[in-house]
Amino acid sequence: MEKLYGGIEAGGTKFNCIVAANPDEIVVEETIPTTSPAETINRVLDVFRPHQGSLAAIGVGSFGPLDLNPASKTYGYITTTPKPGWQFTDLCGHIRTALGAPIAFDTDVNAAAVGERVWIQQNNVLDPFIYITVGTGIGVGVIVNGKPIHGLVHPEAGHMSLPHDLQEDPFAGNCPYHRDCWEGLASGPAMAKRWGMLAEELPDDHPAWALEANYIAHAIANLVYAFSPQRIVLGGGVGKRTGLLELVQQRCLAVLNNYIRSEIILEHIEDYIVAPGLGSRSGSLGAIAMAQNLGG
Amino acid sequence: MEKLYGGIEAGGTKFNCIVAANPDEIVVEETIPTTSPAETINRVLDVFRPHQGSLAAIGVGSFGPLDLNPASKTYGYITTTPKPGWQFTDLCGHIRTALGAPIAFDTDVNAAAVGERVWIQQNNVLDPFIYITVGTGIGVGVIVNGKPIHGLVHPEAGHMSLPHDLQEDPFAGNCPYHRDCWEGLASGPAMAKRWGMLAEELPDDHPAWALEANYIAHAIANLVYAFSPQRIVLGGGVGKRTGLLELVQQRCLAVLNNYIRSEIILEHIEDYIVAPGLGSRSGSLGAIAMAQNLGG
Repeated sequence: MEKLYGGIEAGGTKFNCIVAANPDEIVVEETIPTTSPAETINRVLDVFRPHQGSLAAIGVGSFGPLDLNPASKTYGYITTTPKPGWQFTDLCGHIRTALGAPIAFDTDVNAAAVGERVWIQQNNVLDPFIYITVGTGIGVGVIVNGKPIHGLVHPEAGHMSLPHDLQEDPFAGNCPYHRDCWEGLASGPAMAKRWGMLAEELPDDHPAWALEANYIAHAIANLVYAFSPQRIVLGGGVGKRTGLLELVQQRCLAVLNNYIRSEIILEHIEDYIVAPGLGSRSGSLGAIAMAQNLGG
Repeated sequence: MEKLYGGIEAGGTKFNCIVAANPDEIVVEETIPTTSPAETINRVLDVFRPHQGSLAAIGVGSFGPLDLNPASKTYGYITTTPKPGWQFTDLCGHIRTALGAPIAFDTDVNAAAVGERVWIQQNNVLDPFIYITVGTGIGVGVIVNGKPIHGLVHPEAGHMSLPHDLQEDPFAGNCPYHRDCWEGLASGPAMAKRWGMLAEELPDDHPAWALEANYIAHAIANLVYAFSPQRIVLGGGVGKRTGLLELVQQRCLAVLNNYIRSEIILEHIEDYIVAPGLGSRSGSLGAIAMAQNLGG
């Protein structure tokens, strides 16, 4: 039998836990609501304890900000999050101590990028590779030269500034730090505040979707110019809305305006900006791939 | 004696050629005006021929777009440049054939990033590392996970979209592809067109400089969010203007608005966004470092 790994996608509303050898051999899958750190982590540990002896390693992809610097005293912590009670939570430490397995740790979106690249784009040569989630927040995971980007902290590309035409869209934006950054203009809560109803309740023919596609397309164009990625996956609760991906693809072509002379962009944009092949499991199966990469 | 290398910074107006072992041991340094490909490359070869037997390898950092894919038939070419006569010029091939040395090839800005990181930040642990040139055009070189980014083509982050307040700045922008992208708003020619005089003739107290700093700061903030870089070097003819760096640093702090909780940003911005330590030799000495990296 293949080695088993643990995968945890730690989110602000729920923790997705998986025990698996690969996406086709999932032994256990369970979702835990995010409450207090102690309660949540204990319930997560309960999922893995029955398999403790057979887990070669555990991958954790978490909401942040995180300390990803192995030389730091708070490595493996969720750090300055606004989420009540979760500031400076030693997420990795608790799991490592309780389960006695090596831990791979990264942001939720870097984990999702790893998952989509390893399990769906199995050649592993698409580099850079970008995973975007548009939902309650906007996050971007990026693999460059074979590894997720960490850097000074870790990327927070959801907070990039974009053109905002106040005549077309008078909504001021709802980011507490930047007001009308990408997340402030295009996250689910921003849409709800602008239109007075939840994003999922907006009908398909509502002008909200063309505006949403416009912001996502400008942001993707900025990421194309910054990273020259070979593939971009658009996920998240809002990102997966039926029809939005196609609007984003077409708007992105208009924004790029033939500047990047690459066949996949100019002639096959539908193969360049794509939906997550792993559906809602990009993060948790990405964490499994991260655990495998530890070589455990 | 240390091994000698050749370094070429191939620019749209001039080619900077160096034979050196390192920045302190420069044997030859010569500047060739960029005319036709045949004439320019022949004059460049004349610089290196007397040292042909002693060059272990040659680094080339070039204006683009370039073909950086070693598996491509046009690897080492300048490709779809608008520069008359230079489309699909086999820059590497001509140099390799004539001088018989291994060639390292990258964009001018990636070469400059390598140069600043290797020769000035000698620990080589600052990763990601970003070099920005603001001059006739705007270009960005990035090292991530130890190597320059290539990707689908190569980064063209000078073409990112930024907020553009038409009431504050009615200038429409001069990028032929995107009108008011970063380069369209903030390159030297954009400044000249907006203000009716050359950037270098604008006095220090002209409002042009606060506006210029604003665009560069928004772009740097976007790069900080996208890459989480550990150091950013601001170079180029406009970028080196006295006083501009300090305006950019302060404006960047305002744009980031304490979102990135990193000590070097919050308390030492002057050590985070810095001037090129190699002055005008970032590209040519970067090419020397690239040649060394070949292991020749």
